[in-house]
Amino acid sequence: MALSDTRFLTRRRALAATLAAQRVDTMLVTHLTHVRYLSGFSGSNGAVIVSKDLSALIATDGRYTTQIAEEVPDIEVVVARNCAVELLKGIEGPRRVGFEADFVNVAQLEKLKEACPEDVTLVPISGVIEKIRITKDPIERERLRAVADLANSAFQELLDEGGIRAGRTEREVAADLEFKMRVKGAEHPSFDTIVASGPNSAKPHHSATDRVIEVGDLVTVDFGAHDRGFNSDTTRTVVVGEANAFSKEIYDIVLQAQLAGCAAAVPGAKLADVDKACRDVITNAGYGEYFVHSTGHGIGLDVHEAPWAAATGTGELEEHMTLTIEPGIYVPGKGGVRIEDTLIITSGRPENLTNLSKDLTIV
Amino acid sequence: MALSDTRFLTRRRALAATLAAQRVDTMLVTHLTHVRYLSGFSGSNGAVIVSKDLSALIATDGRYTTQIAEEVPDIEVVVARNCAVELLKGIEGPRRVGFEADFVNVAQLEKLKEACPEDVTLVPISGVIEKIRITKDPIERERLRAVADLANSAFQELLDEGGIRAGRTEREVAADLEFKMRVKGAEHPSFDTIVASGPNSAKPHHSATDRVIEVGDLVTVDFGAHDRGFNSDTTRTVVVGEANAFSKEIYDIVLQAQLAGCAAAVPGAKLADVDKACRDVITNAGYGEYFVHSTGHGIGLDVHEAPWAAATGTGELEEHMTLTIEPGIYVPGKGGVRIEDTLIITSGRPENLTNLSKDLTIV
Repeated sequence: MALSDTRFLTRRRALAATLAAQRVDTMLVTHLTHVRYLSGFSGSNGAVIVSKDLSALIATDGRYTTQIAEEVPDIEVVVARNCAVELLKGIEGPRRVGFEADFVNVAQLEKLKEACPEDVTLVPISGVIEKIRITKDPIERERLRAVADLANSAFQELLDEGGIRAGRTEREVAADLEFKMRVKGAEHPSFDTIVASGPNSAKPHHSATDRVIEVGDLVTVDFGAHDRGFNSDTTRTVVVGEANAFSKEIYDIVLQAQLAGCAAAVPGAKLADVDKACRDVITNAGYGEYFVHSTGHGIGLDVHEAPWAAATGTGELEEHMTLTIEPGIYVPGKGGVRIEDTLIITSGRPENLTNLSKDLTIV
Repeated sequence: MALSDTRFLTRRRALAATLAAQRVDTMLVTHLTHVRYLSGFSGSNGAVIVSKDLSALIATDGRYTTQIAEEVPDIEVVVARNCAVELLKGIEGPRRVGFEADFVNVAQLEKLKEACPEDVTLVPISGVIEKIRITKDPIERERLRAVADLANSAFQELLDEGGIRAGRTEREVAADLEFKMRVKGAEHPSFDTIVASGPNSAKPHHSATDRVIEVGDLVTVDFGAHDRGFNSDTTRTVVVGEANAFSKEIYDIVLQAQLAGCAAAVPGAKLADVDKACRDVITNAGYGEYFVHSTGHGIGLDVHEAPWAAATGTGELEEHMTLTIEPGIYVPGKGGVRIEDTLIITSGRPENLTNLSKDLTIV
């Protein structure tokens, strides 16, 4: 970490600034994704406390003493196996300490209560750090660009090499794409790669099976890479050999819907309206009943995170939020198409992290 | 599911039989791994309730109605997005309902409490299903054999093709092995593959970096495959080009320790004694301080699960438990060796699922 890298301090400051409104003096953070977000620590056991005065303390076990010294030069470290318990024990009361109600299970809470000094009160808190991390800072945006480029260049390579072709199984295509992402630096896929061919393309939640790809198939590939905490998410649908009228028709409708969704994704836009912009194109073309999911989601440390672009979505887009735009049409027995880009919302047109053609591609 | 396949009913019967001792009438199961274990349902949203009289009800959302009908022909299905809440609402009191305290978070518990009919009492329960699934039934053992064979044959292929060699990066070796497992049918690796070469072999928790493998390196590869809920776990250490005296010495000590651990893994053996059998060999050879972790763990639906073969381990091995035996020596600056097999405990010698040579392999 460079000395000039103050992003973790900035994030802790943002958290500290919310504590008064939450009516707590200190926040105990145990969700590892959030520990990493607030401190930079990437180990598999850790917890951090942050107080209103910005004082902080972090804990991990003996396996990570070298790593945490490198990753977190600016917070005092407590070495213990039961990180949260040890941090709580050291708190001097009287004090109200918030904990992450969405990530502490009931059995853990019992242990925390036992460890609490008498004049320390535990207070359940929900969604505070999620709200801070919904907009991405410059380093996060750079990481998201990099991991998207990694994954998308792997897909382009797959296409260029003829990796999607009749005679290959869905599983082989998935394995090939995941291999390319791994070699380019991914720690693992963000999720099990979806390769949905022929009739399987009509199943939005298909995975990748031993079905052999055939000439005439629509093939939907939904993939992402994970690198140092960050994720990407992209979907492209291609046609093998030749596209019939049905394939061309639904491809064009989904593409127009996707472009409408991207155009609607500006600061101030209501999330329900972004969904509507996308959905209306498909509904007006007579395929509304076959677009069976919502339009998109935020992405960052989680593959799926706020904001949610859905018909029932609440709230508005803000600058530096992320959003996928991923409409689809799925006609059982006939086939389906989904096209997905990942955007960063900016003051002008959104920045599109998915640098791949959306023209109907025949492979 | 064949009509003769009664394993899920058998498991629910085992759970129902524990409920009186837990002083509850019904158990609400929300941990997806446990939902799958008790019902066969593999979707990403679901919950099941099982009562003392063996009556059961399962819930999932609209995306999975077709899938759940295929996977769970023998339990009535409730279709709802908030599965646990919906199941609770339907319970007729007065009744005491157990919930999984290790898997229900504090925010979820609040929602469950709100959904509860007035004369239904929620009771936190820990470790009951874990205790049932610690011994593996015939179908689980068959699945564990199959997924171990898949992963280990991929590693053998990697070796046979010269996939571990000077000039390749750790990351390329990991990508190659993961590709082979994926093509052979794995849904994904059980965990990010470890390829620890040269000085990195002295780090037990290394991942796979861009370090280029060199002649003379020890290379430790720790890998596993996941297929339909089940996991495998194997480690082999090879030497590139030529083995020096240090490499030969620690390899032989770790191998003798590993064999001693395997020999000690019989029904009735104390888990601490299995660890000791392994550890004593390394300690007596003067390397005790460099064996910095415990000897092994159970494996099944989780990669790491009970039983735990550790110096501080409690309890004894039973027939049809699983256990890895994975001693290691890690000398900072010089290198390390780890050898790991996965065993199923039987009444005689353990069944070793890891059908790979343990002779020192020069690649």
